[in-house]
Amino acid sequence: MTNRTTDTGLHNVFLHRWSPRAFDGSDMPDADLATILDAARWAPSAMNYQPWRFLYAKRGDENWARFLSFLLPGNSVWAVNASVLLYVISETVMGERPSRTHSFDAGAAWGMLAIQASMLGYHSHGMAGVDFAKVAEELGVPENFKVEAAIAIGRMGDPSTLSEALQAREIPSTRKPRAEIAYPGNFRS
Amino acid sequence: MTNRTTDTGLHNVFLHRWSPRAFDGSDMPDADLATILDAARWAPSAMNYQPWRFLYAKRGDENWARFLSFLLPGNSVWAVNASVLLYVISETVMGERPSRTHSFDAGAAWGMLAIQASMLGYHSHGMAGVDFAKVAEELGVPENFKVEAAIAIGRMGDPSTLSEALQAREIPSTRKPRAEIAYPGNFRS
Repeated sequence: MTNRTTDTGLHNVFLHRWSPRAFDGSDMPDADLATILDAARWAPSAMNYQPWRFLYAKRGDENWARFLSFLLPGNSVWAVNASVLLYVISETVMGERPSRTHSFDAGAAWGMLAIQASMLGYHSHGMAGVDFAKVAEELGVPENFKVEAAIAIGRMGDPSTLSEALQAREIPSTRKPRAEIAYPGNFRS
Repeated sequence: MTNRTTDTGLHNVFLHRWSPRAFDGSDMPDADLATILDAARWAPSAMNYQPWRFLYAKRGDENWARFLSFLLPGNSVWAVNASVLLYVISETVMGERPSRTHSFDAGAAWGMLAIQASMLGYHSHGMAGVDFAKVAEELGVPENFKVEAAIAIGRMGDPSTLSEALQAREIPSTRKPRAEIAYPGNFRS
């Protein structure tokens, strides 16, 4: 639970999902990782094309240090204590044609993944602070795929393990009022 | 519930969410629509920029016929019986800079929205079969925003209201094996 509130019947799992930086350095059981990835697998996508791929490393495995090294320093400093690091990749073509929805579809899969992780008591933290070109090169991502984001997943840890600057940011973020992002009819600037 | 099965501890809401075409033509209470949109609102995004916008029409309101007319005929033929039509729009810049994640972030918001809709007993159906240029023009979407997708939400209806061709497709879709979309280490072609 967080100190967030809202005025609708929103399920708590959406309201209290947030993206901490303090993780406890524990390992994730394989069964939990499979469950979390399974949520992404069942996401909807245009033509059911399923353009998403999830490359992962589990803390301490043979890929862990490499996966961590692709993050920008502002992220790797705390993500080192996560349990799993993921790179989300999407296929930019549908057969011969360019895909218009590959990033949007991969984002939906990430949304599902984040909620299932929360349901299991984990926290997930998406990151765009990534050396994307290095990920593509080092992980052999083909030209017709885009590296969308990195995701750290783990159990929340003690904020005192963070720098003072990051400790100050270790609170659930707010959101724009609903009326600014969702409304009837025409676009409002 | 559907006839889908999986081999993980996946929550039923992910497994049994699917995208029907037969809706029952009922109205959606405002409180439910607010709850569903609120789930999208609380999605994560890069720098918490919240690049998403959701323009909606409720069946029979002053925007309904216009919103329906932007769908390609293969979609409008069944979406006419949904309760709400949404256009998901994302901001392609973050201040002065191009945004790398606007579609991915908007997709995460769509994923949250879809799951909250399922939790309330609704079904949602994302569509890329849309006259996107017409949406942008008719709804006044500025140049630095992209129309990502349309979404129909409603209560599931009787499949016999669909054409025979669509009735034959009115079954929950399958997915690729998990090992094809999520695995450790390097990209696998």
